[in-house]
Amino acid sequence: MSGLIALDWGTSQLRAYRLDNAGLIHDARTRPWGVRHLPDGGFDAALADITTGWPALPRLACGMVGSRQGWLEVPYVDLPADLDRLGAGMRQLRAADGLDVHIVPGLRNPHGPDVMRGEETQIIGAMALQPSLAAASNWILPGTHSKWASVRNGAVTDFCTLMTGELFSLLWNHSILGTGQRDALATPDAFERGILAARDSDAEGALSRLFSARSLMLEGSLAPGAVSEYLSGLLIGEEFRIALAARRFPPNEPFQLIGDAALCDRYRLAASHFGVTLRAPVVDAAAHGLWHIAHHIGLVSSNGPSLPKDSKSC
Amino acid sequence: MSGLIALDWGTSQLRAYRLDNAGLIHDARTRPWGVRHLPDGGFDAALADITTGWPALPRLACGMVGSRQGWLEVPYVDLPADLDRLGAGMRQLRAADGLDVHIVPGLRNPHGPDVMRGEETQIIGAMALQPSLAAASNWILPGTHSKWASVRNGAVTDFCTLMTGELFSLLWNHSILGTGQRDALATPDAFERGILAARDSDAEGALSRLFSARSLMLEGSLAPGAVSEYLSGLLIGEEFRIALAARRFPPNEPFQLIGDAALCDRYRLAASHFGVTLRAPVVDAAAHGLWHIAHHIGLVSSNGPSLPKDSKSC
Repeated sequence: MSGLIALDWGTSQLRAYRLDNAGLIHDARTRPWGVRHLPDGGFDAALADITTGWPALPRLACGMVGSRQGWLEVPYVDLPADLDRLGAGMRQLRAADGLDVHIVPGLRNPHGPDVMRGEETQIIGAMALQPSLAAASNWILPGTHSKWASVRNGAVTDFCTLMTGELFSLLWNHSILGTGQRDALATPDAFERGILAARDSDAEGALSRLFSARSLMLEGSLAPGAVSEYLSGLLIGEEFRIALAARRFPPNEPFQLIGDAALCDRYRLAASHFGVTLRAPVVDAAAHGLWHIAHHIGLVSSNGPSLPKDSKSC
Repeated sequence: MSGLIALDWGTSQLRAYRLDNAGLIHDARTRPWGVRHLPDGGFDAALADITTGWPALPRLACGMVGSRQGWLEVPYVDLPADLDRLGAGMRQLRAADGLDVHIVPGLRNPHGPDVMRGEETQIIGAMALQPSLAAASNWILPGTHSKWASVRNGAVTDFCTLMTGELFSLLWNHSILGTGQRDALATPDAFERGILAARDSDAEGALSRLFSARSLMLEGSLAPGAVSEYLSGLLIGEEFRIALAARRFPPNEPFQLIGDAALCDRYRLAASHFGVTLRAPVVDAAAHGLWHIAHHIGLVSSNGPSLPKDSKSC
């Protein structure tokens, strides 16, 4: 028996995958044990629980588990970052069960500055599944802290973070914009209206339109139940406006999504209003990325050609 | 005995002033009884308590007390709005003590749309104290929902709302940017650094730089205790960037501040980085505005020329 235990260990969630030596996923488990919400017994207890019954395989983790608040702080690797540089930046710790856990470094963009932990592994995984993207591509990973990234010749060459998801959550749950509008309805029109308001805000930007989520509702031209969708459109639209205004992401190169399917649907609709076509999201990108990195550094040996073998082909 | 009881009744606070018939303030009281935080007995109880011991004078209120969640909803008056139009839009209710309370309408900017309640009265008051501003001036009223406004010939002709104060509070108290940085230090350098980051974000806007409040701290170039000041500078700087990008507020006309002194100091420093000079804030602008409106509609009769008498002179 050989293969890999791949750990996608973020701020709020832990996902574990058992992969075989061809990189196929045989089992997957999820626990609400992000690095800020660990069970009693901490990291060791979380790992023991989520891998219960699995064989003793090499273990590779990515995400906030490698941050200052994580299990072991793994220094960021500066851009441009390819498989070789990620591999060289790896660190390992000895868990309470006597076996090692290897951790992938996050990336640092000195021109920002900006940082990511976990998304680099998802991009590696998605490129392994779709090698044509390695030459030149743009990436959008929507979420609490959305990442936009560029890849050239198999290396991440640029990225930026937009706090879209966190801003939406704060504004909807804690600001005047969410006051009294708890019975949100599904209103795609309001979502698109928000996207267009952000797009057409031009150099002012969508913060200049934020209060309109309230004033449109007060004057009756936006239904109280539609405020949530309008706000979502406004903030996702602003993400596109900002990223495209920066001219860092060439619109003529493919844009690849990675993330939650429903959220990615929102991004694809938003993109259509900015003249951008987004490719459907890649599933289980982190698991594939971890397997591919593990293979690259020799942590697992492949007996099948199911994934590209080195950075030249990804 | 004659004069006016002036009520500046907002979302989180109630301020009451007793003015004489020359418009001078003889007494002022503050209670934490905004329209969302009323004492038992509601509006009537709050009014009775805060005016205890004062003579039975005409009563005029402004602010959220005239909103849908207030004591009596007073329809907005559309721009342009001068003293005559504000007076024509007033409404009154009979309080439990058998006497009337008059309420000033808020303003609606159909080109937005946007709304204000209370700030229109502050602007009227500040113009009464500084009549030279009536011809052509810009106004900044910093706060939870900052307002920028234009005045021409004594009328408010344009305004917009920027949720700067509420955004700062949300991000500092509830987002990842405030995590673990509770021991904020006074660091004016970090505040200016935030202002410049917003200004130099150009068409991207400061939302594109928001995550830098964390990444600068992680890489050690921003002290953990300085994150709060940096974030404050970033958001106030963004307010200036947006308002000036809109080209609605001519930079060659005077900019007048109304608001909390410490907050206004921040705005004056920010303004200096945008080539704008802000005049020192007007104190008790709401009380003076209420007196001036009351006088204009004949609710009080003046026996002294201490304030301009009509809209032509303000």
